[in-house]
Amino acid sequence: MHIRNMTLQDYDALIGQVNEWWGGRQMSDMLPRLFVRHFKQTCFIVESDGNTCGFLVGFLSQADPQAAYIHFVGIDPAYRRQKLARELYQMFCKKAMEQGRTDIYAVTTPINKTSIAFHQANSFSIIEGTHVIDGIPVHADYDGSGKDRVCFVKKIWQTEAAP
Amino acid sequence: MHIRNMTLQDYDALIGQVNEWWGGRQMSDMLPRLFVRHFKQTCFIVESDGNTCGFLVGFLSQADPQAAYIHFVGIDPAYRRQKLARELYQMFCKKAMEQGRTDIYAVTTPINKTSIAFHQANSFSIIEGTHVIDGIPVHADYDGSGKDRVCFVKKIWQTEAAP
Repeated sequence: MHIRNMTLQDYDALIGQVNEWWGGRQMSDMLPRLFVRHFKQTCFIVESDGNTCGFLVGFLSQADPQAAYIHFVGIDPAYRRQKLARELYQMFCKKAMEQGRTDIYAVTTPINKTSIAFHQANSFSIIEGTHVIDGIPVHADYDGSGKDRVCFVKKIWQTEAAP
Repeated sequence: MHIRNMTLQDYDALIGQVNEWWGGRQMSDMLPRLFVRHFKQTCFIVESDGNTCGFLVGFLSQADPQAAYIHFVGIDPAYRRQKLARELYQMFCKKAMEQGRTDIYAVTTPINKTSIAFHQANSFSIIEGTHVIDGIPVHADYDGSGKDRVCFVKKIWQTEAAP
């Protein structure tokens, strides 16, 4: 298993698979080329046996010098349950920390229980929202009308990226 | 006419109007809250008579220290033909230049002839693409399968932002 920075060639190869990896959901609209084009130092792919198994797209906040943001993660269903998303998150946190960032943010949809559980299992806290739905704090209309989101933050420290 | 930085409150007020301002096209998916949340120093709104007439969302590239990117611009149809988009672009270029950026990038769709003409009228050059369609260089599948784009760059210098 090997993690390296994502390239635009990786983007071209991956963008057509994103919806399939997400079980048919229309996700590729969330991933315009600009993210890899302009934030490639904080975008990663994970490879195994020469295959690309997953990727993470994130960036350093320009408004908040303590913050970094994980925008999108995809894992090939054939490579699930191998903790690859966790490895990608750890790599992102390590790189963010090297750039002086202490607060890692991520956002998901209230219906994505797998994502909510993943973030909670990886020491992300749910940020207080406008409502509580099924026990989960939710920010109503976060990304526009009807686009509710669950928002996470994780505080990282120097020990975080230790092997 | 007054230009100021965009806030998250502005985002909440504007995100519901974006599709309407774009003539009914589904554009709001291109504008998740993250852009204003994390790049607010390079996001602007233009106001007139107390009304928000338009906005621009952009950021500084983290991969290319010379580059800045204009992601999205919207102008209320009631305030078109007043060169407000041009003013927003000039403000963005000024702020990008203050941060040492010399290359301003933007992307549009091949069908958006108004946007192509706007960029050409404002000294943006079209970047060579993979195809030429109707005389315009186009990058096929730029944002994924079928998502062709026209890519622009403008070199700015110290004189650019002079009043």
